[in-house]
Amino acid sequence: MTAILQSYALDQWFEASTGLVDIPSAIDGRVVARASSAGLDFAAMVAHARGIGGPALRALNFHQRADLLKALATYLNTHKEPLYALAADTGATKRDNLIDIDGGIGTLFAYASRGRRELPSERFVVEGASEALSKGGSFVGVHVLTPLQGVAVHVNAFNFPCWGMLEKLAPALLAGVPVITKPATATAYVTEPVIRLIVESGILPAGALQFVCGATGDLLDHLTGQDVLSFTGSLGTSEKLRNHPAVSRNAVRFIAERDSLNAAVLGPDAGPGTPEFDLFVKEVVREMTVKAGQKCTAIRRIFVPRELETVVGEALTAQLAAIKLGDPRLDEVRMGPLVSLAQREDVRAKVAQIAGEAEILCGDTADGAVIGGDIATGAFMQPVLLRCAKPREARHAHTTEAFGPVATLMGYDSLDEAVALVAMGEGSLVASVFTYDQAVAEALIFGMASYHGRLLVIDRDCAKESTGHGSPLPYLLHGGPGRAGGGEELGGLRGVFHYMQRTALQGSPGRLSLLTGNWIKGAPAPVAATHPFKLDFDALTVGDTVETGARAITLDDIEHFAHFSGDTFYAHMDEEAAKANPFFPGRVAHGYLILAFAAGLFVDPAPGPLLANYGLDSLRFLKPVSPGDTIRVRLTVKQKQAARKPEYGEVRWDAEVFNQDGETVARYELLTMSARRGVVEDLRLGGVPVQ
Amino acid sequence: MTAILQSYALDQWFEASTGLVDIPSAIDGRVVARASSAGLDFAAMVAHARGIGGPALRALNFHQRADLLKALATYLNTHKEPLYALAADTGATKRDNLIDIDGGIGTLFAYASRGRRELPSERFVVEGASEALSKGGSFVGVHVLTPLQGVAVHVNAFNFPCWGMLEKLAPALLAGVPVITKPATATAYVTEPVIRLIVESGILPAGALQFVCGATGDLLDHLTGQDVLSFTGSLGTSEKLRNHPAVSRNAVRFIAERDSLNAAVLGPDAGPGTPEFDLFVKEVVREMTVKAGQKCTAIRRIFVPRELETVVGEALTAQLAAIKLGDPRLDEVRMGPLVSLAQREDVRAKVAQIAGEAEILCGDTADGAVIGGDIATGAFMQPVLLRCAKPREARHAHTTEAFGPVATLMGYDSLDEAVALVAMGEGSLVASVFTYDQAVAEALIFGMASYHGRLLVIDRDCAKESTGHGSPLPYLLHGGPGRAGGGEELGGLRGVFHYMQRTALQGSPGRLSLLTGNWIKGAPAPVAATHPFKLDFDALTVGDTVETGARAITLDDIEHFAHFSGDTFYAHMDEEAAKANPFFPGRVAHGYLILAFAAGLFVDPAPGPLLANYGLDSLRFLKPVSPGDTIRVRLTVKQKQAARKPEYGEVRWDAEVFNQDGETVARYELLTMSARRGVVEDLRLGGVPVQ
Repeated sequence: MTAILQSYALDQWFEASTGLVDIPSAIDGRVVARASSAGLDFAAMVAHARGIGGPALRALNFHQRADLLKALATYLNTHKEPLYALAADTGATKRDNLIDIDGGIGTLFAYASRGRRELPSERFVVEGASEALSKGGSFVGVHVLTPLQGVAVHVNAFNFPCWGMLEKLAPALLAGVPVITKPATATAYVTEPVIRLIVESGILPAGALQFVCGATGDLLDHLTGQDVLSFTGSLGTSEKLRNHPAVSRNAVRFIAERDSLNAAVLGPDAGPGTPEFDLFVKEVVREMTVKAGQKCTAIRRIFVPRELETVVGEALTAQLAAIKLGDPRLDEVRMGPLVSLAQREDVRAKVAQIAGEAEILCGDTADGAVIGGDIATGAFMQPVLLRCAKPREARHAHTTEAFGPVATLMGYDSLDEAVALVAMGEGSLVASVFTYDQAVAEALIFGMASYHGRLLVIDRDCAKESTGHGSPLPYLLHGGPGRAGGGEELGGLRGVFHYMQRTALQGSPGRLSLLTGNWIKGAPAPVAATHPFKLDFDALTVGDTVETGARAITLDDIEHFAHFSGDTFYAHMDEEAAKANPFFPGRVAHGYLILAFAAGLFVDPAPGPLLANYGLDSLRFLKPVSPGDTIRVRLTVKQKQAARKPEYGEVRWDAEVFNQDGETVARYELLTMSARRGVVEDLRLGGVPVQ
Repeated sequence: MTAILQSYALDQWFEASTGLVDIPSAIDGRVVARASSAGLDFAAMVAHARGIGGPALRALNFHQRADLLKALATYLNTHKEPLYALAADTGATKRDNLIDIDGGIGTLFAYASRGRRELPSERFVVEGASEALSKGGSFVGVHVLTPLQGVAVHVNAFNFPCWGMLEKLAPALLAGVPVITKPATATAYVTEPVIRLIVESGILPAGALQFVCGATGDLLDHLTGQDVLSFTGSLGTSEKLRNHPAVSRNAVRFIAERDSLNAAVLGPDAGPGTPEFDLFVKEVVREMTVKAGQKCTAIRRIFVPRELETVVGEALTAQLAAIKLGDPRLDEVRMGPLVSLAQREDVRAKVAQIAGEAEILCGDTADGAVIGGDIATGAFMQPVLLRCAKPREARHAHTTEAFGPVATLMGYDSLDEAVALVAMGEGSLVASVFTYDQAVAEALIFGMASYHGRLLVIDRDCAKESTGHGSPLPYLLHGGPGRAGGGEELGGLRGVFHYMQRTALQGSPGRLSLLTGNWIKGAPAPVAATHPFKLDFDALTVGDTVETGARAITLDDIEHFAHFSGDTFYAHMDEEAAKANPFFPGRVAHGYLILAFAAGLFVDPAPGPLLANYGLDSLRFLKPVSPGDTIRVRLTVKQKQAARKPEYGEVRWDAEVFNQDGETVARYELLTMSARRGVVEDLRLGGVPVQ
């Protein structure tokens, strides 16, 4: 009996008994599984995510959520093997599985790492600098990002049943937002076992992940302005979701990634015999055939200098003819079938539309070779290369997405024309440029940038390590304007912030410092009874301050420092020359002398919880220090952060150096590593009174 | 004869002759002006913006566009006087005009200043750090923002005919995107003269600004994915625009700012007798009466501890009764009429809905006093305060926006309940909290954050300088989730980036360095024949490098530096203690000693174009330097930027300090000010060969 795929709702597996749809194998059309969501209580699922999953995730800080992602990625990585075999029925070759399964797990790892490194050990993010909103400094503003209190609904495409689910899941969970994910039914039999692994791992809190196998029913009716709807798929479906009454009325955040006829452009300099020419041909063939061209980032439009159209057409045709089409489980097979016969019909219909304005150079014949498969029962399709002689007059070649191994070759007469032709795609996810000429790269890249979410320049210098035209990467934006949907995904933390609300906070510096845990200038800065370098990380409070004594800087100090350091810049050594400099009143102290003396004023020499000064940020020298001036320092705890190791914490100090008139001569942020409570003795730093 | 308002299209004034609509005065109902957009060729307007305005703006860099905004603000500021008188007919008092007219001009100034200070002297923005995408370092990524190549269509509300237009105009123009602006017809007679001033100033390039007086006709049909539609107004209209077929299909960027029933919450600590109680009452009254409550940010929901409901109700009623309603031109009048009799009818109908679940404590009687006006012909309306006894069961009190001097008082029993009640507004632009208790502030602010774009904590420390609950500020986010529309405006550069496309660029470090003008590690770093400190700003090329000689650091150097600077931290002085520190192998050199010696190695002592080292960013000490180690420095031009004065430029250098084994011991970015070509001699820095 054929397996019935189950949904996962309210932390329980659910099997539908009505409305079951047969899911055919791409290879031979036999029924692989059946699926239906009939009977799922979508209102309860949304309530469960909001009431159980959201609070559980929001109770964790970003580092804890990052640790969940890492544990999940590790678990999947050690249990992934059975998924490969299942995916064969979708038409995926081994190479395709590396992208889908390993790529998906890699995205989890990437977000785990980024969350640990770039997000705070807090439940919110302080974004950007504080803003002074009043002359007296008693009213300031700062932006924070907090997790939305709703649910992320992810509606995915059939082509990447694993990656498509995980690349949306990772940023949402890291943000602290629970997920209801719905794969395309056509390949849901690969997604369901991934969800089973996640559930059986027990890593995620209850309510954090639910899974719909089948149609979305009335799910969208329950969405509000605290929810996010993220969709990957066709333009038509995208419009339906976007204009759904609840989505529209409640301003549900909507992220779409849809039709995109991505371009590859060969530069005029990159003729036959250049490395870039060979790279171009190879990349176009790869993009047309990976996943049998069922990739939203695949190259669909091939732009070359008009005089190279014939030679490129011949090179592509030759390489495409060598692609071995067949059963994806066979080692010698390079390209598997499309996902279904229905999909092949759709692609063929679109090829016919494009062919109305282009000639077919090669592909899709009934008698083409299929290794270990039958073109009648399996959705096999040979790559189709078209050539459009009048691209400025074409429409389908630029906007009809044949979601299969199909692309159209077009010639251009000038770089401006190439840019204009690419723009006729009305906005795409990605385009690649093959050139070794800076002027060509500049004209094409800046000509096309506003129409694209991602652009590559592929050349001899980067090709060996290039991840290629078609690979969205976790740290780079994935999405595109216009026809591509206008959505943004991934891009490192950018993708996380889509699940958070940006809020401007206003109030007194003291109140906002307490609320954000970030000391803001103007907030209370009480001088601690104990030198704060003697306090362990946990005993330190944001705002704790040292006010140092004063130290005069003499001309001798400057001379001495100059000869000792070797920095005999004239502004320190020659009164007349220094006066001629527009920034100095005469000889002045070295900036690094000021830093060194400042440290001499605030450092506590004996061993204690403060372990090291590991860096410094945003140093500005604001006023020259002349011989005879006196400096003193105010050092205030600005921020505390968990470090990678549990034994230490990172402390950021606001350092301000004043002269004898109370004017600020330098300001910077000092970074130190301080021992956590209880660790101080273990580190044999004893002998110091630690509170 | 009544004036016919004109549109400004294709850089010409256009007067409609058909479809004219009468615009009544708020004060007495007489016809102030007539307006129609009949006959405007919207397709031509869009084409004009795209073909003429966009290219002209994009030919400028951000600093040049910021200079345009500053010139415009200055011009308007010296010609604003006649606008005040015109605005009286909208019902605006002098206080209201300060917000609308002076506030609008202030926003232009603010964006001019921010553009100069925070954006580069380029046509694009490099966003964030570069991303390593390969182990060998030959393939990297970086994000850039470029202006959209379309048009920004701004559809504004009637309440701020000047500010509403300018606060959207400033970010769009700074981004490099031309604007078609459409005010609400009801108050367009104030906007039109502002447009006339802008046009007569001659400051903006042709095509940068067009103005529609009247309906939008088929304007939206012409929008594409390169365009932005930004709307302020009602939820109903917002939905129509958002779901317009072209907007939906082409993924036109849509920014909405719509219905919002903003809350003010009195903390349980802030009872009668506290400064916060008085501040609360004053602010609620102010927010109900400024612009006669016709402000999207006005306080509509008043939450107080249940036991304080009566006393707050009495205090508000008393102060509202003292508000002098009447002709806004009169000095003694505090609140003018609503914009029209129709608007008053709408507000009254909504008050009736809310009154179905609340009692009216005061307001809106037919026999109330109106100074210098007649309640029959002018749209005067006394403030209405309602009290809802069962707020958890209410619906209209939370979601029916009576856009006039109307608010509802509600009691809460716990902070959790206050948070839940505020959330029943389904997302708002702003809320304010009145408390002097950190625990109260924290519970309310983080409880409400994800439902709001802006939150204030008003207390005795900030009240004097506070800009108040209702004031959107150019540097802070304006917008809110859910019912408030989900849009974001302003927020400093955030508001500018809404008009730009984010694109991830991928390629070799060398190619991306050349494209972005930002040197990326791994890109060529040719050692210049001339020490780059001897090259003027214009002669310097990104990538130019100095490789210094080496210098050993001895134990004597460390001892000497310690006693000279006063920094005798044990890690430098005591071998045993240093070894016990988890980060050090034994005694190590001071970080500032490394910096000082590094400067000694790369500084060129003689006068030359390099004028000063004014700062340092992102310093990290990556590996300890032990006595006997030898250091050397590589310094590379990372970025060049125009400075505020034309005589200098700012140069950012990538500095990397290596030890004898080629390991990086420190890395930082050095900031210098260098003289521009031709200026060097003027600065009497002669005697140096300047190329």
